[in-house]
Amino acid sequence: MRILFLGDIVGEPGRKSVLKFLKSIQQEHSIDFTIVNGENSAGGRGITPKIANDLFKEGVDVITTGDHVWDQKELAEHLDTETRILRPLNYPAGAPGHGCIVISTPKGQIAVLNAQGRTFMGQALENPFLLVEEQVQQLHQQGVKMIFLDFHAETTSETIAMSYHLDGKVSAVIGTHTHVQTADERILLNGTAALTDAGMCGPETSVLGRSVESIVYRFKSSLPTRFPVAKGPVRLCGAIVDICEESGKATKIERYNRLLEAREM
Amino acid sequence: MRILFLGDIVGEPGRKSVLKFLKSIQQEHSIDFTIVNGENSAGGRGITPKIANDLFKEGVDVITTGDHVWDQKELAEHLDTETRILRPLNYPAGAPGHGCIVISTPKGQIAVLNAQGRTFMGQALENPFLLVEEQVQQLHQQGVKMIFLDFHAETTSETIAMSYHLDGKVSAVIGTHTHVQTADERILLNGTAALTDAGMCGPETSVLGRSVESIVYRFKSSLPTRFPVAKGPVRLCGAIVDICEESGKATKIERYNRLLEAREM
Amino acid sequence: MRILFLGDIVGEPGRKSVLKFLKSIQQEHSIDFTIVNGENSAGGRGITPKIANDLFKEGVDVITTGDHVWDQKELAEHLDTETRILRPLNYPAGAPGHGCIVISTPKGQIAVLNAQGRTFMGQALENPFLLVEEQVQQLHQQGVKMIFLDFHAETTSETIAMSYHLDGKVSAVIGTHTHVQTADERILLNGTAALTDAGMCGPETSVLGRSVESIVYRFKSSLPTRFPVAKGPVRLCGAIVDICEESGKATKIERYNRLLEAREM
Amino acid sequence: MRILFLGDIVGEPGRKSVLKFLKSIQQEHSIDFTIVNGENSAGGRGITPKIANDLFKEGVDVITTGDHVWDQKELAEHLDTETRILRPLNYPAGAPGHGCIVISTPKGQIAVLNAQGRTFMGQALENPFLLVEEQVQQLHQQGVKMIFLDFHAETTSETIAMSYHLDGKVSAVIGTHTHVQTADERILLNGTAALTDAGMCGPETSVLGRSVESIVYRFKSSLPTRFPVAKGPVRLCGAIVDICEESGKATKIERYNRLLEAREM
Ligand SMILES: [Fe+2]
Ligand SMILES: [Fe+2]
Ligand SMILES: [Fe+2]
Ligand SMILES: [Fe+2]
Ligand SMILES: [Fe+2]
Ligand SMILES: [Fe+2]
Ligand SMILES: [Fe+2]
Ligand SMILES: [Fe+2]
Repeated sequence: MRILFLGDIVGEPGRKSVLKFLKSIQQEHSIDFTIVNGENSAGGRGITPKIANDLFKEGVDVITTGDHVWDQKELAEHLDTETRILRPLNYPAGAPGHGCIVISTPKGQIAVLNAQGRTFMGQALENPFLLVEEQVQQLHQQGVKMIFLDFHAETTSETIAMSYHLDGKVSAVIGTHTHVQTADERILLNGTAALTDAGMCGPETSVLGRSVESIVYRFKSSLPTRFPVAKGPVRLCGAIVDICEESGKATKIERYNRLLEAREM
Repeated sequence: MRILFLGDIVGEPGRKSVLKFLKSIQQEHSIDFTIVNGENSAGGRGITPKIANDLFKEGVDVITTGDHVWDQKELAEHLDTETRILRPLNYPAGAPGHGCIVISTPKGQIAVLNAQGRTFMGQALENPFLLVEEQVQQLHQQGVKMIFLDFHAETTSETIAMSYHLDGKVSAVIGTHTHVQTADERILLNGTAALTDAGMCGPETSVLGRSVESIVYRFKSSLPTRFPVAKGPVRLCGAIVDICEESGKATKIERYNRLLEAREM
Repeated sequence: MRILFLGDIVGEPGRKSVLKFLKSIQQEHSIDFTIVNGENSAGGRGITPKIANDLFKEGVDVITTGDHVWDQKELAEHLDTETRILRPLNYPAGAPGHGCIVISTPKGQIAVLNAQGRTFMGQALENPFLLVEEQVQQLHQQGVKMIFLDFHAETTSETIAMSYHLDGKVSAVIGTHTHVQTADERILLNGTAALTDAGMCGPETSVLGRSVESIVYRFKSSLPTRFPVAKGPVRLCGAIVDICEESGKATKIERYNRLLEAREM
Repeated sequence: MRILFLGDIVGEPGRKSVLKFLKSIQQEHSIDFTIVNGENSAGGRGITPKIANDLFKEGVDVITTGDHVWDQKELAEHLDTETRILRPLNYPAGAPGHGCIVISTPKGQIAVLNAQGRTFMGQALENPFLLVEEQVQQLHQQGVKMIFLDFHAETTSETIAMSYHLDGKVSAVIGTHTHVQTADERILLNGTAALTDAGMCGPETSVLGRSVESIVYRFKSSLPTRFPVAKGPVRLCGAIVDICEESGKATKIERYNRLLEAREM
């Protein structure tokens, strides 16, 4: 089973690029299953049902999110029926939506999980180490072997600790949220693929997808300003993970990192 | 001018590996000037004068630091005489040491700067965007063209914003502090080489250089515990930057990333 | 010289109550000079020129603010002409407005300062301890003896440290921002009146002026929600400080704390 | 039932003063039950079994703590046998000690709870709003009517929200941690006594009990330094709450706030 994961899709540039190139990427890399983080796909803030549907139509199987999940108001109620869009699973009981989905594929069942770190994150959520572990145990009892976690976190320490915490229990732990791809893809000792951050799908000349001028102005002046999504060529970032269907262990992980040229867009 | 920069050296494993392999790395890559971040070289916490001297003897030219600079008490007064060890330049006036040094080399003068980000960092320091800019203007007035900044920061947004802020004004902006190398090395439009984080020189199987068990225990339990430096094979991370001596602009940047095998150590 | 200071005015309930009762409070307590913190007077978020003018007309002499100063967009440019509205003085150079004003009164010149703490505050500002001290030295050189500081900060430690830092150099250091009045009014050894937080002027049954239900929901669920200004009887909180016009030292400080009954509103 | 609660006891000055005056305070005010927060009683950092025993001998019934609970290593194992010392109840399962105790008194059973806020607190703990509510429900099912919560939190909003959340369900919600007494003691609509912070028992001329010079130096310089417990006259801060034994509702709350004169110490 070969999984394509694409990191936080930012705004229209990121969204259009993913929609335009997804099919060809899937073909070129013989992808079996596609997961994208869509938390910034609606103008940089959240995701709408329409955008999610567009992504599903082009071949996305599951959409993960993060701290921006509630930015578009219409999403909350959509989450209860559209279970292929995940929100972090470590919200208190009663939150709209779910943080885990199990999908049957020709190559077997795969579970996708989404959880959020706590260090330096806006919302105070429940302990992701304990809740993800509990969820994974349930999946094992159900016989699900292939498990993919998008761990949305700020600090490298929390994501790396999560990777080791789950090593041998899940197929892959891929971080998102910093919007910058890390160069530490590896398979841990017990068979879990790990990458501290997948990076984003958004404008190359930008600060996390936002206009350079606005962010630099903010840091220089400490004054408020608007942060429009940047323009220009897009870079698509993510990872491709091979999982053994029998054992659920990862056999290979490669970073996906492609700068689209202007003429491609 | 070819510069080797190595990220945060963590504890004895990181330190010994750097001391053992530095000469051969310098030769293999025809390095002209070597900078290392030493803020975690003394048992993970700070740096001692002795460790600094060992590094200088093996061929390090300048040592940068960060939020851990004061962890070893003897360092503060050493900083006033040993100007090749930098502390972040954005401390209020009166702090021991300096955040900038200019060194004459056979290939011309090069300035090394060290500054610290503010978002999610322990100490409240002064605005690094304004203070680094001021320092760079002074260097330009002195005729210094080659300028290298180690920007020690937690968030990707602050480091990337700093890179653009200085694009065309300095030769390179390389981030440190997260201990994980990012995969976004590039030369910006106006000639500044940028890498959001250089990564660390420390034990591969670890959380930022610390023992996996201790950090995972902390995240699971929220209880205090000691975080010993991890053991086992070391990975050396950093970057190699080529700078045009005439213009001060970067012509090339490559990540340095090498896992030492057990038999090498 | 007797000064009345009223803490953060919250929304329409706080605003209307202050406008309605200010004159009678001034008379009853023989007030010479009135300062109010207006950072939440426009629906809880910022202040508009119109609201400021209403307050000035009723007898307010100076309006201080804090982290919410920029919430109403029209204020920024108004600040450059209406110097009686202050923003925190520890913004980088170039920010709109000023953080200090000197006003001539029948009983002598008085300076009002506004600064913002850094611990746990949203914006990263410059060191208030150094910048306020510098400003105070300038005022002393100009012969201004009576100096009042509204220090807008989150932690008790930062505000209390500021009080001691300025003890003997200013007439009063009164904290704002937590919206809860502290019970530690006192005159320090060298003559500076101090109160860690003045409290707010806003609805009694509320969480910092906001509706109880909305804030409790937020803490229980970690989900986003709107936080409307609460309704019901208002409490006015602040302090009354007596200053010796000759020396600038405080001779007396009393907390002002009055719950308006429903029939009064 | 009349309860005396004293806020965070800081170091030797705070400890000695409480030990010396407790009996007389209890007598003077006809106290039935005494609770103190001891999290800073051992040199400002944590509490030792010996200090706890000294307090129990002088008439303390229950000791609460907070974020400093683990500062003295010997305490963790002591907590499992000495159930009268509480740690915040919102640690993950498996933490040493307990966050709730029920004690039988001549005037009926009383439960004391200790929980910790999450906003701006060092440790990431579980949701105190949900866990305290659950604990309170269990106590109600056991027939316990008198319930006292020490809520150890940084922000006024979290403590006040907790008070309203529990209004009518517990007898009193008293905050600790900021070390400064607030002036907002009141009984909420449904019968719960509330005070946002009880204040500390420690040296008057200090920053939260620590030496003024050291803390001011820290804020001015951003450099590390030691923060010794201050010397000089001590102020005792807390609250006295009357509870109806039949209903568990509070009938009265008064702040306790007494500056001991030098000759008393
Ligand atoms: Fe994102
Ligand atoms: Fe995010
Ligand atoms: Fe480091
Ligand atoms: Fe660091
Ligand atoms: Fe406010
Ligand atoms: Fe504020
Ligand atoms: Fe405390
Ligand atoms: Fe505390």
